[in-house]
Amino acid sequence: MKMDLNSDLGESFGAWSMGDDAAMLDIVSSANVACGFHAGDAAGILSTLKAAKARGVVVGAHVAYRDLAGFGRRNMDVASSDLVADVIYQIGALQGLAAAAGTRVKYVKPHGALYNTIAQDKRQATDVINAIKAIDPSLVLMALAGAPLIDWARDAGLTVVAEAFADRGYTPQGALVSRREPGAVLHDEALIAQRMLTLAREGRIEAVDGSMVHVQADSICVHGDSPGAVAIARALRQRFEQEGVQITSFAG
Amino acid sequence: MKMDLNSDLGESFGAWSMGDDAAMLDIVSSANVACGFHAGDAAGILSTLKAAKARGVVVGAHVAYRDLAGFGRRNMDVASSDLVADVIYQIGALQGLAAAAGTRVKYVKPHGALYNTIAQDKRQATDVINAIKAIDPSLVLMALAGAPLIDWARDAGLTVVAEAFADRGYTPQGALVSRREPGAVLHDEALIAQRMLTLAREGRIEAVDGSMVHVQADSICVHGDSPGAVAIARALRQRFEQEGVQITSFAG
Amino acid sequence: MKMDLNSDLGESFGAWSMGDDAAMLDIVSSANVACGFHAGDAAGILSTLKAAKARGVVVGAHVAYRDLAGFGRRNMDVASSDLVADVIYQIGALQGLAAAAGTRVKYVKPHGALYNTIAQDKRQATDVINAIKAIDPSLVLMALAGAPLIDWARDAGLTVVAEAFADRGYTPQGALVSRREPGAVLHDEALIAQRMLTLAREGRIEAVDGSMVHVQADSICVHGDSPGAVAIARALRQRFEQEGVQITSFAG
Amino acid sequence: MKMDLNSDLGESFGAWSMGDDAAMLDIVSSANVACGFHAGDAAGILSTLKAAKARGVVVGAHVAYRDLAGFGRRNMDVASSDLVADVIYQIGALQGLAAAAGTRVKYVKPHGALYNTIAQDKRQATDVINAIKAIDPSLVLMALAGAPLIDWARDAGLTVVAEAFADRGYTPQGALVSRREPGAVLHDEALIAQRMLTLAREGRIEAVDGSMVHVQADSICVHGDSPGAVAIARALRQRFEQEGVQITSFAG
Repeated sequence: MKMDLNSDLGESFGAWSMGDDAAMLDIVSSANVACGFHAGDAAGILSTLKAAKARGVVVGAHVAYRDLAGFGRRNMDVASSDLVADVIYQIGALQGLAAAAGTRVKYVKPHGALYNTIAQDKRQATDVINAIKAIDPSLVLMALAGAPLIDWARDAGLTVVAEAFADRGYTPQGALVSRREPGAVLHDEALIAQRMLTLAREGRIEAVDGSMVHVQADSICVHGDSPGAVAIARALRQRFEQEGVQITSFAG
Repeated sequence: MKMDLNSDLGESFGAWSMGDDAAMLDIVSSANVACGFHAGDAAGILSTLKAAKARGVVVGAHVAYRDLAGFGRRNMDVASSDLVADVIYQIGALQGLAAAAGTRVKYVKPHGALYNTIAQDKRQATDVINAIKAIDPSLVLMALAGAPLIDWARDAGLTVVAEAFADRGYTPQGALVSRREPGAVLHDEALIAQRMLTLAREGRIEAVDGSMVHVQADSICVHGDSPGAVAIARALRQRFEQEGVQITSFAG
Repeated sequence: MKMDLNSDLGESFGAWSMGDDAAMLDIVSSANVACGFHAGDAAGILSTLKAAKARGVVVGAHVAYRDLAGFGRRNMDVASSDLVADVIYQIGALQGLAAAAGTRVKYVKPHGALYNTIAQDKRQATDVINAIKAIDPSLVLMALAGAPLIDWARDAGLTVVAEAFADRGYTPQGALVSRREPGAVLHDEALIAQRMLTLAREGRIEAVDGSMVHVQADSICVHGDSPGAVAIARALRQRFEQEGVQITSFAG
Repeated sequence: MKMDLNSDLGESFGAWSMGDDAAMLDIVSSANVACGFHAGDAAGILSTLKAAKARGVVVGAHVAYRDLAGFGRRNMDVASSDLVADVIYQIGALQGLAAAAGTRVKYVKPHGALYNTIAQDKRQATDVINAIKAIDPSLVLMALAGAPLIDWARDAGLTVVAEAFADRGYTPQGALVSRREPGAVLHDEALIAQRMLTLAREGRIEAVDGSMVHVQADSICVHGDSPGAVAIARALRQRFEQEGVQITSFAG
């Protein structure tokens, strides 16, 4: 049994730091590295890429809307010509820094509002797909398990990896519980580890109503933006190791 | 006889346009394309790269300080770790967009204050050289003819192309006349064309004191930021064609 | 009979220029001056404010989403705490520059996507209203004639000025014809002047279906972003002067 | 005996937090609040201003170069027309937010590289002085004790407050020891409190060579960007209170 663990890294900016990249790089197999549009200055990104390279962690481009002040979390109605080019620009910039760090960008994971929007919005989804195809069609797209985006991207010829979220509740339909509703975010390390173990073994997660829902996921997203989040991720990794689930990137 | 003509392109930004890229791409053999730090939004850059590709114009990365408000023209005391990474980031971003446009980045020309600073300042020059070597040592560096940078870069293993400025006056020592002094900028189309023809044929330019000064240049920089500038560049190209000077990029 | 003419000014940014502020300041009675979020660097804004002061043109704050790359034209889902503070920040910045120019900010006109959104969206409208009340409740809000925003702002205690657009077509219901439909934008100088004269005299505009629709407007927006636009604005002013319509700001 | 304590606050930006503003506002009498150019988004600034108002802490504008990525710490060769307008813009923006918070901006303290540059560089110093005079000549300028700037500003008619740095070493000439040399930064809480007590009582600080140097300071700068820094500031305040030094702003 195998599972990828991914996390958002390289999100410091200039004098401001965010997250514990060093700790998370000892936990995950895939690093979604900021590309400068929602977070990440070039020197900080390069430093994270070198650390990822040193630990053998696979690197993906965490592309976003151009919105530093909003950390890429605000929906923006970006025209297709801009969105396609903005995504290519970010991937290219990360590829350049990755080359300097002796590694390569293997996948693309949209960030924040862009991630959520393209899961459902075909116009912007198509823009991101076209951007990836234009710069390097061999790049894998990481997308929300169960989202329409997955089929759109596969139909367009991309390889897609579906991800689940370790600390999020799921509806009986396999969607994430809205952050405005109870059960949206989980905090119990042991419970989270157990849920993800079931996901890895059976492809199922217990939904908020107690039913078991099928979730097809090749990767699990863990967070590192607080000491508590790092602890959850570490506990998850330890549990996987104890239970014989191999933590390894989909990208080899 | 051969000579490269280069110009700064892709310098529009969002709703603001600058220069006449279409006109200049019919004149030059090399396009210094903005990378987003002093100018250039991704969609505009991509459009310029596609136009360059369509006309067979070679593309270079016009890297700059991170200073949109100052158009990269203000000296900035950027730390080496930042400058190296910022230059790699910009080259990578342009490489990504160039790939999407079906072309490749062949050279790097620093812009504005960075251009002037590294011509003489060894610390920042070394940062730029190290950035180029880190991302792709086969990239050519375009530098001011006669500047110490040229030797520093060659000593570091880079291929360097020296450039002269069509519309600038030269000192008897082969340096550019300061913009604060008379004779710094030339406006006469025919005179400029004649001076550059002499440069192409004899490797010499008439200095402000009337003496002939040796200038070793493989490329001539022309401007396109006003109708007058475009006319000067066009006249220069026509004169070269009439006189049998082949206009062709150093990068083939 | 009196009418205010307003136009968007101060929209250059750094090395990029936009519009012909000098020409427009000879035409309009009110200047919507950019505040740095969608356009306008501080030095350029200050220069425009000094020119407005010299000509006796009243100054308003043209506040926008924080989106230089998109010129404030892209819808953004900005949280209330951010939107309120961003609007206050922009008004304050313009007030400071206005003080240095010897003039005062008299009104607020939201720009671009923010303008269109708050015309209809009560949450963001309330944010802008609250921002104005928090910094200076005596500031007038300029809003789209016929929009729900007008009542919301008046109910909240603000003075509101309604504006019509000189070069836009109107529906029989008094709304602007969508830019995606025929008749959205008018180009005939004489026709535009005649329509606005009817508006000033009768409070009515001929809609796209030929019917006359009532539009209550105290100000007419004219554009200056192209030579053609300036010519339309100038012709409108001349017609008004010939017909005895006094061009004067609502703010005295 | 009286002394002002000041600290840099409001330096978070969007998703990135910096410093412990709540803790520092219980310690200081004057808050140097970021204005958005080196740090500070509008909502975060407004929140800090409200907290300062609630605690009766006097507010100053912490103006900076336009350099978010460099946190305003990089020297920039900004033209006078830009620097004057940029400083006015920042003061105005903070005035607007202060009005919304029910407080007022009483002084201006330049930040980072701008602070250091104008202490000695007359051209940029004059720009900042002219900016303050243009927006509100009653604003106090806070400047490095012993710097030429103090006389330049007073000669221009501004009220100036000189400040010392609690955790910095001093040369026998009363200048700060360079950060590149030993003794530049102090860490011992008790020693720092004792030194500042001597400064408050005698107007003297022990220099790195053991001599006592006269330093005329009306304010002491303390930092809050780490738990250790907050502890130093708190210890200093407690010592002052024990010894009967009244901590109160120069601006009343």
